[in-house]
Amino acid sequence: MEHDELKKYIHDVPDFPKPGIVFKDIAPLLASAKARTAAVDLLLKEVENLKIDTVVGIESRGFLLGTLLADRLGAKFVMVRKPGKLPGDLERMPYQLEYGYDTLEIQEHAIAKGEKVLIHDDVLATGGTVSAAADLVEKVGGEVVALNFLMELSFLNGRKKIKSHKVLPLIKF
Amino acid sequence: MEHDELKKYIHDVPDFPKPGIVFKDIAPLLASAKARTAAVDLLLKEVENLKIDTVVGIESRGFLLGTLLADRLGAKFVMVRKPGKLPGDLERMPYQLEYGYDTLEIQEHAIAKGEKVLIHDDVLATGGTVSAAADLVEKVGGEVVALNFLMELSFLNGRKKIKSHKVLPLIKF
Repeated sequence: MEHDELKKYIHDVPDFPKPGIVFKDIAPLLASAKARTAAVDLLLKEVENLKIDTVVGIESRGFLLGTLLADRLGAKFVMVRKPGKLPGDLERMPYQLEYGYDTLEIQEHAIAKGEKVLIHDDVLATGGTVSAAADLVEKVGGEVVALNFLMELSFLNGRKKIKSHKVLPLIKF
Repeated sequence: MEHDELKKYIHDVPDFPKPGIVFKDIAPLLASAKARTAAVDLLLKEVENLKIDTVVGIESRGFLLGTLLADRLGAKFVMVRKPGKLPGDLERMPYQLEYGYDTLEIQEHAIAKGEKVLIHDDVLATGGTVSAAADLVEKVGGEVVALNFLMELSFLNGRKKIKSHKVLPLIKF
């Protein structure tokens, strides 16, 4: 299954979460063992030579394929979460939303110094979330070798925020 | 790796999320490819004869091993989420918290009538969440054949709420 065929498993839902927004629903892709496996295989193809030690998944949809990627790579899996969810000693990073700010957290000792890290999320939109996640990984000593996504919403120009990293989206809209 | 050895990969964090509570942190298990794979293998051993069509993962920590279970079973994966996250036509189920109520949602057409469903979450605590998830799956036409968990907090008596289903925790505390 190639990239264009995978697009059929991502459905447009108009006016969600609010009027005027077209939501890209990945539920059909998750529900198809064939499409899901093809997506993971294609994502892996782009990173297999990067000697990744650790996959970081961003809450919550980055958890879905994040653990699958870690599984196939034989890598560590580390969570980046919203505030108040992770226990222990944490590093925090605020990031800008359309209106206001939010924060992401990682466990301080989750990543050893110099570990090669792949950050995964389902969507690259404005880039705020993944950019904060990359900052967190670097803050705890990791080396971000790539950011991969099931899809990139190119019209939102998320790449502008993360120009210093290798960006690997599977599908572009 | 056996059950008792896996316990070492779940760390106690005292006074989280509030004073007097001991949080069971699964981050060390996710960070070890060996322990994570062993956990998935042991979870699968208990369900391999149940002819599962679909794995339902409960947001957000049920997404972590849920997709891995679906992957190994060649099954569909379906999300049960907190309110406002899933698009399209939904079924909703309220459930009781310590103080007040919360709600879970599933997409109405996520599961076909008669599909054999495994519901997965990381922890069985009071049973409120997984019980609501099982009700949702039945409401949209699925047959819940088992509920599995990385761990059960036995002292919280969650099984009382879900006595009509097969409960398969990997590790008991």
